[in-house]
Amino acid sequence: MSMSQGSVWSPVITPFGSDLSPDVERLVSHCRWLISQGVGLAVFGTNSEANSLTVVEKVELLEALVAAGIPADRLMPGTGSCSIGDTVTLSRRAVELGCAGVLMLPPFYYKGVSDEGLFRYYAEVIERIDDARLRVYLYHIPPVAQVSISLPLVDRLIKAYPSTVVGIKDSSGDWSNTQALIDKFSERGFQVYAGSERFLLATLRAGGAGCISATANVNPEAIAKLGKTWQQSDADEQQASLNRVRAVFEQFQMIPALKAATGYYSGEKDWLRTRPPLVELSADKSRELFYLLDAEHFEMPDLQSTGV
Amino acid sequence: MSMSQGSVWSPVITPFGSDLSPDVERLVSHCRWLISQGVGLAVFGTNSEANSLTVVEKVELLEALVAAGIPADRLMPGTGSCSIGDTVTLSRRAVELGCAGVLMLPPFYYKGVSDEGLFRYYAEVIERIDDARLRVYLYHIPPVAQVSISLPLVDRLIKAYPSTVVGIKDSSGDWSNTQALIDKFSERGFQVYAGSERFLLATLRAGGAGCISATANVNPEAIAKLGKTWQQSDADEQQASLNRVRAVFEQFQMIPALKAATGYYSGEKDWLRTRPPLVELSADKSRELFYLLDAEHFEMPDLQSTGV
Repeated sequence: MSMSQGSVWSPVITPFGSDLSPDVERLVSHCRWLISQGVGLAVFGTNSEANSLTVVEKVELLEALVAAGIPADRLMPGTGSCSIGDTVTLSRRAVELGCAGVLMLPPFYYKGVSDEGLFRYYAEVIERIDDARLRVYLYHIPPVAQVSISLPLVDRLIKAYPSTVVGIKDSSGDWSNTQALIDKFSERGFQVYAGSERFLLATLRAGGAGCISATANVNPEAIAKLGKTWQQSDADEQQASLNRVRAVFEQFQMIPALKAATGYYSGEKDWLRTRPPLVELSADKSRELFYLLDAEHFEMPDLQSTGV
Repeated sequence: MSMSQGSVWSPVITPFGSDLSPDVERLVSHCRWLISQGVGLAVFGTNSEANSLTVVEKVELLEALVAAGIPADRLMPGTGSCSIGDTVTLSRRAVELGCAGVLMLPPFYYKGVSDEGLFRYYAEVIERIDDARLRVYLYHIPPVAQVSISLPLVDRLIKAYPSTVVGIKDSSGDWSNTQALIDKFSERGFQVYAGSERFLLATLRAGGAGCISATANVNPEAIAKLGKTWQQSDADEQQASLNRVRAVFEQFQMIPALKAATGYYSGEKDWLRTRPPLVELSADKSRELFYLLDAEHFEMPDLQSTGV
């Protein structure tokens, strides 16, 4: 990837059938649409309800995506879990399938753990996988994981595994942290992704890599366009427009809202389903969301019924 | 269990070998010792580093414990995880093996989830297992899980599954919450366990069931004794003595401290090992712990080298 072109990834929402099992065909279809809109596939992210899936389900889905012809080099599955064993199993399979990289949460059950403990966790995972093709993107999302990836930890991991630990997604929502990551590490080729397209332009101007953002599920083309054209004169206007759409979704529970919008614009009501502990958007909230999106003249172009 | 005898369970610490795999023989031996000291075995709890184990590892360990002759009716494995699938797999195996019950964390990745979502999670798990022998003990531990089990949620679950949802472990550290649980639900036979022996006497006097406490790994006999004799005149003295030992351990990271003490009194240094992200107690901290325990004339009687 050249430094001048920003990279945008979607943490792909996961469709479920009436028995709450993953709907493979619908997921494949949605991934094809996302790729056609210009974004990469960060499947099994927070917005994918990935921690509500078992490792077996995730391995099977990843295999199905590649078998269906989704290009593995456009896949960056989330693989981090609380146990080293599960993280290794899924990450290893991602490497074998040729995925571009893996997005790795820290173990998130114990709180207040030390950087030494987190370093040992990542080191143990990397050394067990023991594969030169492995590319790890750290996943810093303190509002959800409640376990942070500090700058000194990033520094130590890059120094220990310079060709493996190649990037980070910063979902702290704290721009000063994203900027510090870019300032300290991007010169060495370390790729810093913002966790929201709100920070896409700022990230790219500062020398970061792009964004991996929830709303890239519903507004992929426009976000990808700013990623490609951020050096053009209309970049600030583009960013302002992205922010307006983002602001609509941020008024709702994000994951149910992404699914509601996808269901609305595709006409596929099965999209609304979430796995517990998440709950689908209420009818009232859904109407409010659609009203606000329509007021923004929002569209999900070319999103079609999958016929599933 | 009669109302007059308090029940004490130990969230059994998990020994690991040099490759961080669970040490089955040492675990069996430790479980035998704990039973000989009068406590039940809440294996796969927070203090067991259970979320650092895979479901496959937990199923295998549970089978090994029962195969080694540990009485299943003295086992209350922790089975809650972020995914319904994993929780069902482990809980179902626990039922099949005849375990006394299962201690079930709420799904703990997503924060700020609704009671409706948590109810659906537990309901889905219970209905998938679909076994009249299942006994669920809810596990409320907001300082770690960061997801709470509210009183209205408990009420709804008891009403929906009265013969299945039979108790709770309250590790909030908030006595008013424990008391409210007892006041509201214990009349219906619902068993309320305190998450620390600090609240054992208060829990039993209020009509609760007992405690499931970290330090029941190291001080089981004395805690179990108060559980049996809490109506005797020396109960307050016993409680004060338990509190002094607990206060020593609370000055350290609890899980590494439990392992350090077990290693110290058994002479088995392999006990010190923790799985990342936890880190073993430093040499300095260990010396401080042993000094303080010796000053209390603390012992772990009959704890012997397992010869492993």
